[in-house]
Amino acid sequence: MSATTYTVAGMTCGHCVSSVKEEVGQIPGVTAVDVELSSGAVTVTSEAPLDEAQVRAAVEEAGYELKA
Amino acid sequence: MSATTYTVAGMTCGHCVSSVKEEVGQIPGVTAVDVELSSGAVTVTSEAPLDEAQVRAAVEEAGYELKA
Repeated sequence: MSATTYTVAGMTCGHCVSSVKEEVGQIPGVTAVDVELSSGAVTVTSEAPLDEAQVRAAVEEAGYELKA
Repeated sequence: MSATTYTVAGMTCGHCVSSVKEEVGQIPGVTAVDVELSSGAVTVTSEAPLDEAQVRAAVEEAGYELKA
């Protein structure tokens, strides 16, 4: 089990949170996605460590940006 | 044909705009809903003049607020 917290820029409301959760949740092996709107913190729990590029791609697919 | 512009508070992103358009668009007789996110201006076009209470209810159903 692995959990990593990323920071996502551009989320402004609950719909944005839902979009990010949906896209990141579709990455194979991801078991939970927790998002805190105010800080942009996105904690991704997965069966094995994820490639950050996959998380970045999912966040961008949702229309937001992963901070470096 | 009737068109009225209201101001809606609380919309922060394109998802919010979609929610308002969807709910207001379901009011019987409404033929178009145009939303400008930056100003909150929502222009509702309908076959006959609408009861403002109906528009207010739809906006609140979407999770936002009609300014007085």
